[in-house]
Amino acid sequence: MRIIENDTDYRHFTVVIRNRSENAGDGVLESVKKIIEDVRRDGNKAVAYYTAEFDKGTSIEVSERTIEEYSKKADRHFLEALEKSVQRIRGFHKRQAEHSWSYNDNGVVLGQLIRPLERVGVYVPGGKAAYPSSVLMNVIPAQIAGVEEIALCVPFPDGIINPYVMAAIKAVGVKEVYSIGGAQAVAAMAYGTETIKRVDKIVGPGNAYVAAAKKMVFGAVDIDMIAGPSEILIAADETAEASFIAADLLSQAEHDENASSILVTTSGELAARVQIELTGRLEKLTRKETARKSIENYGAIIIAADRGEMFRCVNEIAPEHLEIMTKDPEKDLELVRNAGAVFLGRWSAEPLGDYAAGPNHTLPTNGTSRFFSPLGVYDFIKRTSLINFTGEGFRNIAETVETMAECEGLQAHAESVRVRRKALEGMMLEDN
Amino acid sequence: MRIIENDTDYRHFTVVIRNRSENAGDGVLESVKKIIEDVRRDGNKAVAYYTAEFDKGTSIEVSERTIEEYSKKADRHFLEALEKSVQRIRGFHKRQAEHSWSYNDNGVVLGQLIRPLERVGVYVPGGKAAYPSSVLMNVIPAQIAGVEEIALCVPFPDGIINPYVMAAIKAVGVKEVYSIGGAQAVAAMAYGTETIKRVDKIVGPGNAYVAAAKKMVFGAVDIDMIAGPSEILIAADETAEASFIAADLLSQAEHDENASSILVTTSGELAARVQIELTGRLEKLTRKETARKSIENYGAIIIAADRGEMFRCVNEIAPEHLEIMTKDPEKDLELVRNAGAVFLGRWSAEPLGDYAAGPNHTLPTNGTSRFFSPLGVYDFIKRTSLINFTGEGFRNIAETVETMAECEGLQAHAESVRVRRKALEGMMLEDN
Repeated sequence: MRIIENDTDYRHFTVVIRNRSENAGDGVLESVKKIIEDVRRDGNKAVAYYTAEFDKGTSIEVSERTIEEYSKKADRHFLEALEKSVQRIRGFHKRQAEHSWSYNDNGVVLGQLIRPLERVGVYVPGGKAAYPSSVLMNVIPAQIAGVEEIALCVPFPDGIINPYVMAAIKAVGVKEVYSIGGAQAVAAMAYGTETIKRVDKIVGPGNAYVAAAKKMVFGAVDIDMIAGPSEILIAADETAEASFIAADLLSQAEHDENASSILVTTSGELAARVQIELTGRLEKLTRKETARKSIENYGAIIIAADRGEMFRCVNEIAPEHLEIMTKDPEKDLELVRNAGAVFLGRWSAEPLGDYAAGPNHTLPTNGTSRFFSPLGVYDFIKRTSLINFTGEGFRNIAETVETMAECEGLQAHAESVRVRRKALEGMMLEDN
Repeated sequence: MRIIENDTDYRHFTVVIRNRSENAGDGVLESVKKIIEDVRRDGNKAVAYYTAEFDKGTSIEVSERTIEEYSKKADRHFLEALEKSVQRIRGFHKRQAEHSWSYNDNGVVLGQLIRPLERVGVYVPGGKAAYPSSVLMNVIPAQIAGVEEIALCVPFPDGIINPYVMAAIKAVGVKEVYSIGGAQAVAAMAYGTETIKRVDKIVGPGNAYVAAAKKMVFGAVDIDMIAGPSEILIAADETAEASFIAADLLSQAEHDENASSILVTTSGELAARVQIELTGRLEKLTRKETARKSIENYGAIIIAADRGEMFRCVNEIAPEHLEIMTKDPEKDLELVRNAGAVFLGRWSAEPLGDYAAGPNHTLPTNGTSRFFSPLGVYDFIKRTSLINFTGEGFRNIAETVETMAECEGLQAHAESVRVRRKALEGMMLEDN
């Protein structure tokens, strides 16, 4: 774990972590472009071809019976935990529901209508890194928004079906499931095939091919966000528990060689204790090779001069996950401007948020919490503006609009107002 | 204007209008890619080079004095209209403000923090199609969200400075203005140069180069939406006024050869009257060549069998602007699922919404109202999830999380919970 105590090292480190997620290489982009074109042109045929090629799969529709059968292989403890997570995630996301509004403003009713998206596609990675929690975190907010049709794609690489993922699909009640993955799944959802109806939005995590495909189809459909490798930043002072910090840093590092685990602290002594804890704990992990590479390449302990510098650092890195373990975490929260999710105090371990605390675990990564938000119910609605003028309301505003339209050189715009103004004057003459 | 009375023609037409905005050609993409790379590498030098090349410009910073001086050239009627528009747009957008919330759930405080973006870049097209209304519609929602830094780029092609645009910039009080445009402006805002600090989000309309550049930098910064050519759809029955409809169709058509103006009606008689009105009115327009091409290529009158078919058509086309001129527009609104903005009744002319009604005129185009929303205050905020567990709250959830983490094969996640569980048990023993 590198120790950073001066500005030069700090600047170098921020460049290193930002560059983890530079755009996929041209090779990936070219393959993805071809796959999307093929699926758009040949539909099912192309999807079947790539599914056979990449996953050795023969069929793409997953029956309810398959979901049912594999769900049963998940053990009872898991099913209970799953049910509890579902309840807690629903409880939080229900508070994000938005409602239409309108008001009368001197002869015009103005408003904002909220409608759910009609059809959403959820991508769930398959194989080794198959996460049932992804199913919950992507499907539940869509359901609460009122989305009526949810299609879910999860590849079965070499025929491997993950029972936990099947149990999660069953728990949230999604019925339309396809065993396809990669760019071909994204293309099928974006443009539709003979079997798969096109969707309005695609959400869910995936590898470099999935990410590149989502970015490419953006505009034809909406997408959730451009996800990069994930990170945790822990801001801690001398009151923090070193073993908790070390365990949490490793929980991020085990995800992925490109994950980044960072401690920023005002206490040199804490830094030293965390280092010792980290070394001991790393050895015991099943995924220790992944975690070690992540810590070596993208891990850091940053020693900050004071509380002010500590939080300048937080806002500059704009972490996906931020833990604050200080004397007064709630007060320190006031200094936070950029973070996907903030975990306050020693009991708020980041993994609680990954599964069951309630808030979404799909969070803006790699500095994008500067401008992106956690996935939420707001991602599955759309707004429509409402404008309803009476004749009197129209008269109040007609001249303003004619003037502006003329100045923009848009004569037909002005004429659309003028034709009504004349009609209204005619009606008033008739009334007299 | 084509008349569509059967399904085959209708299907053909929907394909024609959707394909108006197929991705920019490879030529555009390659130039844009090079411009972005150059600006990212060479900063100011590259921006100056492209500004000299494309706009014959020599300086990129616009002084307050220049803004002041050119504003004075706008006439008094325009300045009054502008002020009224600003007030109305502010009034509507203030209602979109969102607030942080949190709640206590059995040992854990969960919440959603709302923060404004720190720095936003607004792109405003220059030259011939320079629209002061764009300045208002993009800047005001950012200001209401609480964005502290707003940078605005507007090119001065061949040194031409539009006084109306300058007056609009002055009216909303933006001080940081650069006379640069195209992909070089987008790149400068996304990555920063020695002069221009990078922004968190780029909003505003632009030509094919600007649109391609925005899509390319998406992820490094956020962008508003992928804008295509715009459209109006008017749903009308026999009670509607043909002259109003014809004038409104033309107000869309004069924008751009690729604009699309569509009437869907249950009345063959109305259709005939609108055609006659349209022919007469078209001849009188200053922009008649543009309007004529738009009407010929992408205009249509669709005859619907009944009210149900009329609104199926609306939802399939998912128009940017929808006018409803029927016997009971408020009732018909219930059938609308996809539209950027809905204008109800005969007095709600679409151009009112372009300038001064209050709601934003930046709307999802070309079918994207299926999933995109009008630009709004919500585009200039970001959300952060808040998670704050007490020891007791932690104990309620610890087992659930350990179980799920183990099933996902993420042992270090489970360990982060376990180390705290043991500490908590130790503390409880001490207490006894």
